[in-house]
Amino acid sequence: MNRYEKRIEQLREAMQAAGIDAALLTPSGDMEFITGLKRQPGESVEMHTFGDYLQGVLVTQNHIVTIIPHLKHLSIDPQLPNLPWLGDDVIHLPDGDENPTIGFRPFDELVDGGAGSGGAITLALPKFALAMTPIRLAQRYPNMRFTCTEDLVSPMRMVKDSDDLDKMRVAARMADQAFENVVAKLHHGIREGDIYHEIEWQMRVLGAEGTSFTTTLLTGRPGLQAGFAESAGGPLGRELTSGWVLAFDFGFLVNGWCSDFGRTVYFGEPTEEMRRTHYLVMEAQRLGMAAMIGGRATAAEVDAAARDLLVKEGRGHEFIHRLGHGIGIDVHEHPFLCSTDATVLQNGMTFTVEPSLWVNHDYFVRVEDVVLVTSNGGVSLNTTPTFDMIVIE
Amino acid sequence: MNRYEKRIEQLREAMQAAGIDAALLTPSGDMEFITGLKRQPGESVEMHTFGDYLQGVLVTQNHIVTIIPHLKHLSIDPQLPNLPWLGDDVIHLPDGDENPTIGFRPFDELVDGGAGSGGAITLALPKFALAMTPIRLAQRYPNMRFTCTEDLVSPMRMVKDSDDLDKMRVAARMADQAFENVVAKLHHGIREGDIYHEIEWQMRVLGAEGTSFTTTLLTGRPGLQAGFAESAGGPLGRELTSGWVLAFDFGFLVNGWCSDFGRTVYFGEPTEEMRRTHYLVMEAQRLGMAAMIGGRATAAEVDAAARDLLVKEGRGHEFIHRLGHGIGIDVHEHPFLCSTDATVLQNGMTFTVEPSLWVNHDYFVRVEDVVLVTSNGGVSLNTTPTFDMIVIE
Repeated sequence: MNRYEKRIEQLREAMQAAGIDAALLTPSGDMEFITGLKRQPGESVEMHTFGDYLQGVLVTQNHIVTIIPHLKHLSIDPQLPNLPWLGDDVIHLPDGDENPTIGFRPFDELVDGGAGSGGAITLALPKFALAMTPIRLAQRYPNMRFTCTEDLVSPMRMVKDSDDLDKMRVAARMADQAFENVVAKLHHGIREGDIYHEIEWQMRVLGAEGTSFTTTLLTGRPGLQAGFAESAGGPLGRELTSGWVLAFDFGFLVNGWCSDFGRTVYFGEPTEEMRRTHYLVMEAQRLGMAAMIGGRATAAEVDAAARDLLVKEGRGHEFIHRLGHGIGIDVHEHPFLCSTDATVLQNGMTFTVEPSLWVNHDYFVRVEDVVLVTSNGGVSLNTTPTFDMIVIE
Repeated sequence: MNRYEKRIEQLREAMQAAGIDAALLTPSGDMEFITGLKRQPGESVEMHTFGDYLQGVLVTQNHIVTIIPHLKHLSIDPQLPNLPWLGDDVIHLPDGDENPTIGFRPFDELVDGGAGSGGAITLALPKFALAMTPIRLAQRYPNMRFTCTEDLVSPMRMVKDSDDLDKMRVAARMADQAFENVVAKLHHGIREGDIYHEIEWQMRVLGAEGTSFTTTLLTGRPGLQAGFAESAGGPLGRELTSGWVLAFDFGFLVNGWCSDFGRTVYFGEPTEEMRRTHYLVMEAQRLGMAAMIGGRATAAEVDAAARDLLVKEGRGHEFIHRLGHGIGIDVHEHPFLCSTDATVLQNGMTFTVEPSLWVNHDYFVRVEDVVLVTSNGGVSLNTTPTFDMIVIE
């Protein structure tokens, strides 16, 4: 059995244990992880396709059906010969029909097959599937129950195997390389938009499939008071000169796997406050990483290991988010490095470790690595130094 | 009443008529259209935030609640003073809690308020809300029923008012301008990736919020046989020289409104087949547009007006999709110019009109305008000529 056949088996075992009759893996990280079928990147705004709410791979204990909306076959059909474990039950939905009978066929069979159950079968869906999927199915099959695939698939996705890790390392190193190339272009007077664009350019030149999330530039300086720019809708036309602090937050999707990266760059001689803050954030990250010992620490304990230092220094209120999140085929995935997550870390798990301080609502100092849990503590998949301050003279 | 207050009233009337107790407008075109609150652009892959499945604006007959996940307040809170019609019932969800009691409060009230109903209230959700939203709510409120906002809100969104049209015209003209600037950069030997990147650059320089969908370059030439590249995952490294045909499909999101644009460019002297095909596609578009008379034609009739010419010329099998789609605050919205849509067009509706021919699976010839329905037929919001062939010498 190859990795996907194994994963389908594991999913079926988990479904059986949970009393779940079927999983409709709509285009998502779960689908790509379990079946090998590539999701397409998400869109900025909504893109309606007829019958799109039935799209995906339907997995039951003894059958698999692949449901493909019109025109999507152009990208999906060429993949299928390489994915023989999906079998040959493939449904191409017609154009122009929002309730295609042919698309409901496998669900009809499922409900009819639940002999004597009155159609009371349970279907699992990814969290990010369309709400219309359970809504329309419930209208057609009033006794159908729904649950999320999260509890089934997240445990399978948490610990990365060596193939996965190889791909994550490539994605992480690509972020390092992009950052190095971008920093080489920074100069006093550069516009935020030009920096943003250079990151996108590096993404393309280095061969990523896309960004793993909307690139964010947190730009500020002493006295600005909450005036930091975010790329998404923020002012991107400011020219960065002496005194500005620029915190990066970006990542790439490479071969289906994600990176997520952060460093902070100082324009002109950093102030004493900046130096102190920089050291503190990097030390918090170091402490968090050191705590990431497989089989020992919980996610909450790792969060605390970093946070406690910042709190002790009276800066806890400036650290406004969790320490990090699981990362893999999706950029945010279980578990989460936060005070409420009691998951015990295992070797092979991967997390972002990203402490930050929002200094007086003026500017951000942040750092972010993708970190692998090992028996000796966390090991970064990135190569860019952290404690060294990057100063644009 | 301003436009948003009016739209909220209209939504409430539609809810009442349909027996719907509440609508949770999760971040979506529906939310932005009804409330004025900006959605954030969608992401390539999944981005988990605690309690994100409760996020949105909950509208009932007599109350509005805005539910904001942790950190999202950075972009949402600054908007609220400008949106007083949302009232002051704002819930900030805590970090680290996937089932935040505070987030369920308005739903608890809704269910309790349905006096004697046993909690059998009906909640409308956008089609593209998270599947987890109805799934988790149904687990907590077993008698809650769900429906899509589509039937309520789509009719309100179809006919654009003059303010909307002004914004759509700006978005359309920005695509024209970008195309003109990109064409000026084309030369023999240019790589597909450079063209793709130039479009993104124009998007930023001209001031769009983002693309309205993944930019697509359909690249082919005689004898290639289904070898066209799509930007999303396709080979982008090919150099375009004499004989290549490049069909553009891109659009921008500008001030919350979408454009969607297509033209075809020929590298080197076009063949006779290309000339004939080009003329045919442009003539099909012209016929489709001429049929777009408000109050008279149905969507299906407009599709047929263009399609019949292509079929008559024996090219019907090369036109593999609908003629067009409604466009506005989302890039695909109701109604659709296809054989199954019987909607009678009204003045003020806007559609893409985008006939194409996939010539022998070798290359695409396509055109796409955003077209306004008027009493005298369709009027393009774009300014780029269609019949003139653009030839890169």
